[in-house]
Amino acid sequence: MVPQPIAWSPTGGLRVLDQRALPETCVERDLETIADVAEAIRTLQVRGAPLIGIAAAMGLVAGLRTIRSAPRETFVAQLDEAIAMLADTRPTAVNLRWALERMRRAAGSPGDGDLLWARLKSEADAIWTEDRAMCRRIGLAGLPLVPDGAQVLTHCNAGALATGGIGTALAPIYLAHEAGRKLHVYVDETRPLLQGARLTAWELGRAGIQCTVIPDGAAAALLASGRIGLVIVGADRIAKNGDFANKIGTYGLAILAQHHRIPFYCAAPRSTIDCATASGGAIPIEHRSPAEVTAYHDAWNPAFDVTPARYVTGFITDRGVERPPFGAAE
Amino acid sequence: MVPQPIAWSPTGGLRVLDQRALPETCVERDLETIADVAEAIRTLQVRGAPLIGIAAAMGLVAGLRTIRSAPRETFVAQLDEAIAMLADTRPTAVNLRWALERMRRAAGSPGDGDLLWARLKSEADAIWTEDRAMCRRIGLAGLPLVPDGAQVLTHCNAGALATGGIGTALAPIYLAHEAGRKLHVYVDETRPLLQGARLTAWELGRAGIQCTVIPDGAAAALLASGRIGLVIVGADRIAKNGDFANKIGTYGLAILAQHHRIPFYCAAPRSTIDCATASGGAIPIEHRSPAEVTAYHDAWNPAFDVTPARYVTGFITDRGVERPPFGAAE
Repeated sequence: MVPQPIAWSPTGGLRVLDQRALPETCVERDLETIADVAEAIRTLQVRGAPLIGIAAAMGLVAGLRTIRSAPRETFVAQLDEAIAMLADTRPTAVNLRWALERMRRAAGSPGDGDLLWARLKSEADAIWTEDRAMCRRIGLAGLPLVPDGAQVLTHCNAGALATGGIGTALAPIYLAHEAGRKLHVYVDETRPLLQGARLTAWELGRAGIQCTVIPDGAAAALLASGRIGLVIVGADRIAKNGDFANKIGTYGLAILAQHHRIPFYCAAPRSTIDCATASGGAIPIEHRSPAEVTAYHDAWNPAFDVTPARYVTGFITDRGVERPPFGAAE
Repeated sequence: MVPQPIAWSPTGGLRVLDQRALPETCVERDLETIADVAEAIRTLQVRGAPLIGIAAAMGLVAGLRTIRSAPRETFVAQLDEAIAMLADTRPTAVNLRWALERMRRAAGSPGDGDLLWARLKSEADAIWTEDRAMCRRIGLAGLPLVPDGAQVLTHCNAGALATGGIGTALAPIYLAHEAGRKLHVYVDETRPLLQGARLTAWELGRAGIQCTVIPDGAAAALLASGRIGLVIVGADRIAKNGDFANKIGTYGLAILAQHHRIPFYCAAPRSTIDCATASGGAIPIEHRSPAEVTAYHDAWNPAFDVTPARYVTGFITDRGVERPPFGAAE
């Protein structure tokens, strides 16, 4: 079974799996306030572009449940403040802003706190449920690309732990495995935070899918060895022209895949495509603390890089395998 | 001052800096027997292609000093056994075999144990002294490539800690710094064993040279940022056609440098060129324990990869900046 990284707690708080502690320990945390949720997103207890969108939406519901009987003005003021605080946690993934805007719109019509809160609750549930369905559609779109015997390379974690469902980059892999195809997944360990070694290898292992971790620097030699049939990665934001931001290391991997003539796919829900961003140069890149890299020295620690569209064989979305430029999502 | 990773102990043993413990602690170890020396090389207490050649040569002297008054036959038999044991420790770097063959030849002429041992001692001292001079010549050959204001990217550790002198890839950097040029060195942290973050950043910091560590996966984004003027790496073995083996990650870095039209240099003493190896495919690649990558999962952990000669702008050797194919060293 794939892990489920998010849920409602019995008291209506937001329950998350603390992904910093995996795979040594499975710690669940109940987040009660907006500040709790913001902190959990900022410190990567909850991570993965689709999941932080879901967490922000559900977090609004959890954090505002204590003031649900407030008059409209008070509730809306608190909601706007909460949205601003959550939007500010991480700059690169567009899903976070997308989910928060959707929540703001859902609360837009007339009504007092109780009604607004109920609308937020049902919108958050819809975002979560839709994400699960989208993951499955991404999986179906990518399934023909993962034949029996496929050896696939992936980077970071774009799996169940990054979404409300079976992941984005890993969705076609899960469905191919369900269909009885024999697979082997190579996983970049993904420094500095080792999401590949800690998260992807863990969730694939739980699902019984064979996988092998490699140091990020070994990817070129692995691609040259001839055993890899395709590379699939996720995305934090896809620009209109198809340039996309994803975990640092993705851009180099795309060049190396092209160099070795190996197909390189990006898998993401349509909500990751940001048509307001014309190209990769306009995507804000989060730089994180040098301490994540090393305690000894100065470090340059961008969390993401941008892969130009020309390196991407196709975008596996919930609408199928697409090529840019993208139109606005309907 | 650059660190000195090797020396004779006062009692004639081999004293090495245990590079596994750096930079947290500077532990020196005295190696008394051939088995001690073999273990130190195998476990990377002593590492770096030129240095393991020096350590093997000096190790023979240290390990055989207790039987120096033995008759010729006994001494030679022990010497051959010691050479076989040391040659077997690590397969990729050619300097190890090169140094051991040189030691075997030095002991070849007639004479009893005492005389043979004295010849070994003077040959080992010569190898060590020559390496120091070679590093300096490599530095001089590469110096024009490192202008004032240069920003250089390097991988792993090909510095003082890898040689008997000021390093190979770092030699031009040390000399440029001595010449008063302002420099900034970016260092791949170099997973799995972090020789870049632990060793290169440490020795550059001691020398007062500005440096910044990056996760290996960030190299492509750094090269794309336009700030890097050149890449310099070391080598463990250079084939006759110029293909060369170096720490895993080097091959990918070479492709990425070429892709971004940034010069990519390999710096090594001439003893690293193995004219008996026609091309990269014939270089044996050491695979190390998966446990170096992760304690949780299966891992693919080649210690080296092979960079085809076509990606190399030039080879900075103790003879100058050269291009393959190489002739036999005179």
